[in-house]
Amino acid sequence: MNIKEKFGFKVKELREQKEYSIEYLANISNVDRNYISDIEKGQRNVSIEIIEKIITALDTDFGAFFNDNNFKK
Amino acid sequence: MNIKEKFGFKVKELREQKEYSIEYLANISNVDRNYISDIEKGQRNVSIEIIEKIITALDTDFGAFFNDNNFKK
Repeated sequence: MNIKEKFGFKVKELREQKEYSIEYLANISNVDRNYISDIEKGQRNVSIEIIEKIITALDTDFGAFFNDNNFKK
Repeated sequence: MNIKEKFGFKVKELREQKEYSIEYLANISNVDRNYISDIEKGQRNVSIEIIEKIITALDTDFGAFFNDNNFKK
């Protein structure tokens, strides 16, 4: 998986753990619903500001979010 | 500090720890020298692919890079 896919995979994983719909995550993160859908498919080269919005909406932080074997060397 | 500034601050910190010049980091990360300079000033809403290039060039990974109080809730 490339970094976009890894990020999207993790967003989807956390969203589903919290039982949020894409619509709900879109609302609370203030990120467009279709954009989130693309992100989860690994199709978006997201900016750090969008990353922050999504991570915050998922009630986590950069440290915890990226503390995952997928993001380790 | 906003997220762009936090990211730039950390890049600069790690670059200086490794005693890399901006030119050297630009070469090994394949990211434009002026862009890195702007990033370190917190002026760039960097993409995740650029983040990956810089983090890899600094010989770290997402988990370690963001495992920093600056990036915690």
